[in-house]
Amino acid sequence: MTRIGILGYGNLGRGIELAVRQNADMELVAVYTRRDPASVTIATEGVPVKSAASLDDGTEPIDVLIIAGGSATDLPELTPKYAKLYNVVDSFDTHANIPEHFAAVDAAAREGGRVALISCGWDPGLFSLNRLYANCMLPEGADYTFWGKGISQGHSDAIRRIEGVADAKQYTIPVQSALDAVRSGVNPELTTREKHTRECWVVLEDGADAVAVEKQIVEMPNYFADYDTTVHFISQEELDRDHAGLPHGGFVLRTGKSAAGTPMKIEYSLDLGSNPEFTSSVLVAYARAVARFAQEGQSGCKTVFDIAPAYLSPEDGATLRAHML
Amino acid sequence: MTRIGILGYGNLGRGIELAVRQNADMELVAVYTRRDPASVTIATEGVPVKSAASLDDGTEPIDVLIIAGGSATDLPELTPKYAKLYNVVDSFDTHANIPEHFAAVDAAAREGGRVALISCGWDPGLFSLNRLYANCMLPEGADYTFWGKGISQGHSDAIRRIEGVADAKQYTIPVQSALDAVRSGVNPELTTREKHTRECWVVLEDGADAVAVEKQIVEMPNYFADYDTTVHFISQEELDRDHAGLPHGGFVLRTGKSAAGTPMKIEYSLDLGSNPEFTSSVLVAYARAVARFAQEGQSGCKTVFDIAPAYLSPEDGATLRAHML
Repeated sequence: MTRIGILGYGNLGRGIELAVRQNADMELVAVYTRRDPASVTIATEGVPVKSAASLDDGTEPIDVLIIAGGSATDLPELTPKYAKLYNVVDSFDTHANIPEHFAAVDAAAREGGRVALISCGWDPGLFSLNRLYANCMLPEGADYTFWGKGISQGHSDAIRRIEGVADAKQYTIPVQSALDAVRSGVNPELTTREKHTRECWVVLEDGADAVAVEKQIVEMPNYFADYDTTVHFISQEELDRDHAGLPHGGFVLRTGKSAAGTPMKIEYSLDLGSNPEFTSSVLVAYARAVARFAQEGQSGCKTVFDIAPAYLSPEDGATLRAHML
Repeated sequence: MTRIGILGYGNLGRGIELAVRQNADMELVAVYTRRDPASVTIATEGVPVKSAASLDDGTEPIDVLIIAGGSATDLPELTPKYAKLYNVVDSFDTHANIPEHFAAVDAAAREGGRVALISCGWDPGLFSLNRLYANCMLPEGADYTFWGKGISQGHSDAIRRIEGVADAKQYTIPVQSALDAVRSGVNPELTTREKHTRECWVVLEDGADAVAVEKQIVEMPNYFADYDTTVHFISQEELDRDHAGLPHGGFVLRTGKSAAGTPMKIEYSLDLGSNPEFTSSVLVAYARAVARFAQEGQSGCKTVFDIAPAYLSPEDGATLRAHML
């Protein structure tokens, strides 16, 4: 059994708890929280909720600690800290800062003789794998990644911070004509605006100015200004009823050609009813690989690029060759 | 530079020759043939064509020998034979016999202290990888593989062996309604007939009986009897003009759910203008991994499940993390 600890009990922490249940060789040992443990009730009976401080002496009986925190401030601090003490997995997803995060986690994991895996999930994660495999198989070609249709938490949060907004959900939606153009093999050059649209469902506070709120949304730099953005004002009841989930997904495509000029296309797509639940499934599968790397005596920071696929499966090599190859 | 030898110069051998050109860190050293070398002219100037016998003393200056032979009789003999002497890659694709082939090649490679990789290509190969990844991420779910639209060489050959047939090409075509049903997430149980149709383009010999030929095709056990098969009779000119290529592709899907019952779908697809040229690209990328495994001092037989994705790329880990993760 691989003994799993979860640090953090938000959407991702709850997803990891669910994912562990689907893997018979995995066992949830404890949930660790930076809140008051008495204030946190988890879904699994008989599993303790402990203070994050109990991790600090490195003696918790876990094989892998999955760190369910945000990439902006949590993970840059927490992953290096705990990589000295435990084998860890995180879902750090600020693409531009991956090299820096990798360096910090690698140094910590080597110092502690532990194995760490960062930037695990679906993007970065499974989408990254597909970009890499496709580039190796089609050295001459063009890459495209589309996201959605799905809820962007960061963009939803940005809307919620506008004065007069009580609540909001934002969907990122791939532009079908852009996707079709890529699939046709013409290797289009696509602007940000041509690839995705943004759809916002907004609940106003009493007396708020809808026109002013809409203007602030659609003109918001980085988040919305470069996109065709539509804003719908609805009631809290409608938002709760129709937009409660956290669906997401997307497409990774590579179109290319052989040295003889023959066209080829590789497409990978995810359609996820719940972004945090699926991300958690990926984290748990990679936690298995991390435990195995640790058993082999390895140390240091890894990414999904460094893990042979067989390490992710509970089945042995002979079974995989007989049934999945 | 990774020095590549190719054994066999049919469609696959020519594809490998093309694929090596797209990889700046690879060099084609020689093509080996069991035919009279003087009878074989290859596309690359300055690269020798040698007798396969010149491989026999294990002294050819190659890092990896890619064996481009058929799975029925060539590879079961050739891959174990040469795995004792060289690092080798093959595309053995008789799924049911993979365990037996693996055992023979593994024993030979261990005896010779070499690295072998078998069953590389897209199915087995990239499709297998996607089955494995998807099963690890969605432990509760159902798998579906569809092939086509594409030319099945084995089925085309089977038609050509019928008396009265001068030439033929056979397309395997996924049934759109079956694909749609899988994508809808209803986890349908699909019969062979419900998943694929077979379309045959046949050139008759002078005086042949079209009705009798069609009956022999559609009733042929294993090959056609379990499918809805259509037969079109055309001239050799039409066959050569409209069906000269070897396109193929297909779809790997897994639909499943989280432990909370939330639906998830993973889909991978290939649309290949040339089956042998794409298979060759995969073989060449994995030859790079095999050369690296050999440099690390590993030995024995591997499959795509055993190769960490980073081994396939000419880029180093830092570059991959910065640009593809």
